[in-house]
Amino acid sequence: MKKIETLYQHGTLAQLVSGLFEGNLSIGELLEHGDTGIGTLSGLDGELMIIKGKVYQFAANGKIRLVNSDEKVPFANIHFQNDQSIGTLANLDFATFKNRIPQKIKTLNLFFAVRLVGLFDQIHTRAIAAQKPPYPTLTDAAAKQKEYLTTDIRGTAIGYFCPDLYSGTGTPGFHLHFLAENQQTGGHLLDFKLNSGELFIQVFTDFNLHLPIEDPLFLKKKFKLQNLLNSIIKAEG
Amino acid sequence: MKKIETLYQHGTLAQLVSGLFEGNLSIGELLEHGDTGIGTLSGLDGELMIIKGKVYQFAANGKIRLVNSDEKVPFANIHFQNDQSIGTLANLDFATFKNRIPQKIKTLNLFFAVRLVGLFDQIHTRAIAAQKPPYPTLTDAAAKQKEYLTTDIRGTAIGYFCPDLYSGTGTPGFHLHFLAENQQTGGHLLDFKLNSGELFIQVFTDFNLHLPIEDPLFLKKKFKLQNLLNSIIKAEG
Repeated sequence: MKKIETLYQHGTLAQLVSGLFEGNLSIGELLEHGDTGIGTLSGLDGELMIIKGKVYQFAANGKIRLVNSDEKVPFANIHFQNDQSIGTLANLDFATFKNRIPQKIKTLNLFFAVRLVGLFDQIHTRAIAAQKPPYPTLTDAAAKQKEYLTTDIRGTAIGYFCPDLYSGTGTPGFHLHFLAENQQTGGHLLDFKLNSGELFIQVFTDFNLHLPIEDPLFLKKKFKLQNLLNSIIKAEG
Repeated sequence: MKKIETLYQHGTLAQLVSGLFEGNLSIGELLEHGDTGIGTLSGLDGELMIIKGKVYQFAANGKIRLVNSDEKVPFANIHFQNDQSIGTLANLDFATFKNRIPQKIKTLNLFFAVRLVGLFDQIHTRAIAAQKPPYPTLTDAAAKQKEYLTTDIRGTAIGYFCPDLYSGTGTPGFHLHFLAENQQTGGHLLDFKLNSGELFIQVFTDFNLHLPIEDPLFLKKKFKLQNLLNSIIKAEG
């Protein structure tokens, strides 16, 4: 049975912030928990977009490819798409989107998925290059990210809203990735200017956190919530 | 199928800290997700112990009763018991237990259930009396808790370890309730002196957070993680 009320997350964001980038769940296993989502591959190798059960990687070199089921993720979010249109949007940027959408949902306290399909005047994305052990922190890896600007492009922005309360487990606020309709570009969204598009929302009652119980580096790592909050804002902004 | 790898939680601890004490999930619905756990009833009315699918309430007046399936909880943790003995313990207090057990598990980064069955030289428990709207904060309610000291008592301490990273979602560290074998006393454990007993542990790969999506007070509440951390430590110590 597809659990459409559940957002599934493999890994805790604290791992990435602390430099635990090794993949510890296969794409095949991940896809048992949804058909739509975002994530990254082992070593923070690029940005993943999961749409209709297909997993696309936008790598730091700007190339897109389909990912195999035996490749591994250190972190990903996934759900079974059952979203609802809440209408069309036009002429807005990412900052306006971030302000306006929670007002439509009328709460900041639930996890929800967003899917924005349309024509974008501009998208500004990034991808992090594959890191090699010994891994740096997320902040250091993100400082060397590759950025891409594309204009007049059709595509889909997909991702999630995570309430502030779960900072450290996830990125507080919105975290979206992009895939162009022509599959020529994508990545982690830093900014966009939407020409016009349709917004779909799926609100979750359940958030299922799945932890890498067999990863010795994760088990031994010392995490402190207080120390993580600032690092997360810095790396994911 | 019983999901023995999952700790299920209804509600986020932030609700209780902020005075959202109204029950919004029935005991019947809660029991679909486990047979063992802890929680509290609507209005913070006492301390719940769930053992073998039966739900016991230890009220602030010191009485124990079985709870009906239509009563509601604002917050509870539950799982399907499938724990393993990790041996006998003797002559230790709660502080020593808190130090020693994570060393046996060899990680502070996973959620796990504990069940300690034995003879206690002393138990020190509390129960919060039912609060009436407009509800106070958890700190204020806990300040007026009823405390009980019992000596030479057989019983079961059950509860959970929550990693520091999920402070605000749950109580960081150990959170245990007690039920006497003779069912004459129980409550939220403040301290104990164990004579001898057997310890059972169940480590979870998954933590399923279920949020009260239909509770308008929850949806509207403004939570800020940073503000919650101190309040939690104060109220749940």
